[in-house]
Amino acid sequence: MRDTVNAFVVGTSVRIAGKPSGPLSGLSFAAKDLFDVAGHPTGGGNPDWAAFNPVPTRNAWAVQTLLDAGAELIGKTITDEVSLGILGENEFDGTPINSAAPDRVPGGSSSGSAAAVAAGLCDTALGTDTGGSVRVPSSFCGLHGIRPTHGRLDLTGMLPQAPTSDTTGWFARDAATFARVSAVMLGETIPTALPSKLLIATDAFGFADPDAAEALRPMVRRLAQLIGAPSEVLLAPQGLSVWARAQRTLQPAEAWQTFKAWVDRDNPRFAFNVARGLVLGSMIPESERGWASLMRQEVRGRLRHLLPPDTILCMPTTPFSAPKRGLPLATLDPLRDRITCLCAHGGLAGHPQVSIPGATVDGASIGLSILGARGADATLVAVARAMEQVA
Amino acid sequence: MRDTVNAFVVGTSVRIAGKPSGPLSGLSFAAKDLFDVAGHPTGGGNPDWAAFNPVPTRNAWAVQTLLDAGAELIGKTITDEVSLGILGENEFDGTPINSAAPDRVPGGSSSGSAAAVAAGLCDTALGTDTGGSVRVPSSFCGLHGIRPTHGRLDLTGMLPQAPTSDTTGWFARDAATFARVSAVMLGETIPTALPSKLLIATDAFGFADPDAAEALRPMVRRLAQLIGAPSEVLLAPQGLSVWARAQRTLQPAEAWQTFKAWVDRDNPRFAFNVARGLVLGSMIPESERGWASLMRQEVRGRLRHLLPPDTILCMPTTPFSAPKRGLPLATLDPLRDRITCLCAHGGLAGHPQVSIPGATVDGASIGLSILGARGADATLVAVARAMEQVA
Repeated sequence: MRDTVNAFVVGTSVRIAGKPSGPLSGLSFAAKDLFDVAGHPTGGGNPDWAAFNPVPTRNAWAVQTLLDAGAELIGKTITDEVSLGILGENEFDGTPINSAAPDRVPGGSSSGSAAAVAAGLCDTALGTDTGGSVRVPSSFCGLHGIRPTHGRLDLTGMLPQAPTSDTTGWFARDAATFARVSAVMLGETIPTALPSKLLIATDAFGFADPDAAEALRPMVRRLAQLIGAPSEVLLAPQGLSVWARAQRTLQPAEAWQTFKAWVDRDNPRFAFNVARGLVLGSMIPESERGWASLMRQEVRGRLRHLLPPDTILCMPTTPFSAPKRGLPLATLDPLRDRITCLCAHGGLAGHPQVSIPGATVDGASIGLSILGARGADATLVAVARAMEQVA
Repeated sequence: MRDTVNAFVVGTSVRIAGKPSGPLSGLSFAAKDLFDVAGHPTGGGNPDWAAFNPVPTRNAWAVQTLLDAGAELIGKTITDEVSLGILGENEFDGTPINSAAPDRVPGGSSSGSAAAVAAGLCDTALGTDTGGSVRVPSSFCGLHGIRPTHGRLDLTGMLPQAPTSDTTGWFARDAATFARVSAVMLGETIPTALPSKLLIATDAFGFADPDAAEALRPMVRRLAQLIGAPSEVLLAPQGLSVWARAQRTLQPAEAWQTFKAWVDRDNPRFAFNVARGLVLGSMIPESERGWASLMRQEVRGRLRHLLPPDTILCMPTTPFSAPKRGLPLATLDPLRDRITCLCAHGGLAGHPQVSIPGATVDGASIGLSILGARGADATLVAVARAMEQVA
């Protein structure tokens, strides 16, 4: 395999055959370099991470699960530094190429996994999603991607960031492969029955760029064909920006707790904006965390109320398609903040979300997301598969 | 020359002969990698600095001055990243070795220049001093070093940090060489007459570790033999820590102004503590800067009052000898803050200061500093030379 899109970590070479005749036989996969592979250092997207951590002796649960199901591991992929980023630009390892829009970022932090799948270098790939790190690259690279119900999967051997929000997700180009992999990862058959009620989050569509919202309308119509006429709701009565503020309080404060012993001991090298996030995380006052925890309770209550088991909600995965590569921080920072407004519910409430490809705006992909009840991950995958069948 | 102490920037090779038969003929020098050398990128101690800046086409004033006087440039030396550091540990280029105490840091940010001179790899070396970057490595490596009167020398071609505090300084092992180089750099004959009045800063000696203060006593006695019995004074009636607070407000805020366009455009890689300093610098409120500017006025008034032309003041250059290499940030940060308490007056008031070697504590060097009136740089060099003669 030639790494045509700078998706794989340079200097590592990992290839492990899957068990013979499993349900994923014939599929290849890559693992974001946050997942342990026995005998290989977990790089974490930062040149100083591996020195702080022993070379793992066991495969991460997610890696082992795919190997046991017959998929072949073909390599480890570039990630934003220790998963702290949403755009996919890594100043040390380089920025993977978004093959459908080479002048755009791939999205992050699961940038290399998304880029590798999008370029056809493998069939599926493992990512992580704390604040949007599977959903955003799914949207930007035109892939199916899932952020599963928080707490559902075993995260052993996955580098943590903010444990109350961390999840393991995965990508695929087509819905059939996505369903095959999802059945294995979820340990559950993907149902054929679809949910009976569709909600459309008017605040989220209103928050997206108008042309992005418009580009997603045909996909919403296809969803309505499958499920029924949508009901308009507010996802976030308190404000998407208020939810984002809560997540931007809890997640960086928790990330600082995760990384501070390493930072103190090794004074690691970071891109400026990554270090800045850690510094700001270290400075969040307890009073702010207290408020954010209360808001998290409100968000959980809201999503429980909106999403009984037979209901799904749709919204834009991101407010726009992928920004250009190499923009200055003063331009990127507000874009990142807007993305967070459409992603914060994931880390706050832990409901499952699938991003479905199928729309483009401004010459690049944008995904439509569907959310369901906690535990309804397989139902969302079923909807994604049905969407492809009516396409 | 073999770089036995990791003092020189790897990958650069610069050697320029001095003009024949100048006053510094036969001497070799190195330049901190903040000084421009025509045709060679100025690395600035950070892997992303050179990309933001064109390769210089002219030598820095200080480099040209030494070449014109006959000294030979033999290389460019490691510095703390864009001069932001006081201990000399660079996570990209490595930490130069303090040859007299190899398990200790060399001090910074002019770490490589000090290490090269201390190891005998060259006779003198250029450094910069904004908040202590010549004085601290002079103390830790057992060298003569000068922070000249602020505004006296031409800083053309020297990478700035905080222009209201920035100076060009230099190091030498012995007082005779130090005087030769100083006469050229200052453009002034080093006098034979010595000042007539000696002050001893009791607050500064009291702030140093007791064993460090004790180790410096014999040097103070030698000074007294040369100049007369010292008068005890307070250097900082408002508090050395209050002066340090003012400097730690003005200097990082100004450094952020210097570097923010680069940071915004290139999102450079930094060691965590360097990025942290920039982030905190960016957050200093105008009200704090206002207070610090008033305190700077007080400091200037105090030093003008204490130091008429015929008077010098002595104090420990640093509160202790060099800390061990590789300490965690939680240990280093308070040490750095204590060093700043004995260095802040330099950036705040701009008076000249010479650090004189000759004492050791805890197995490593510590310097005695003398300060004089603005413009009395040559007098301080004369005192350093006389000290060696009575040693």
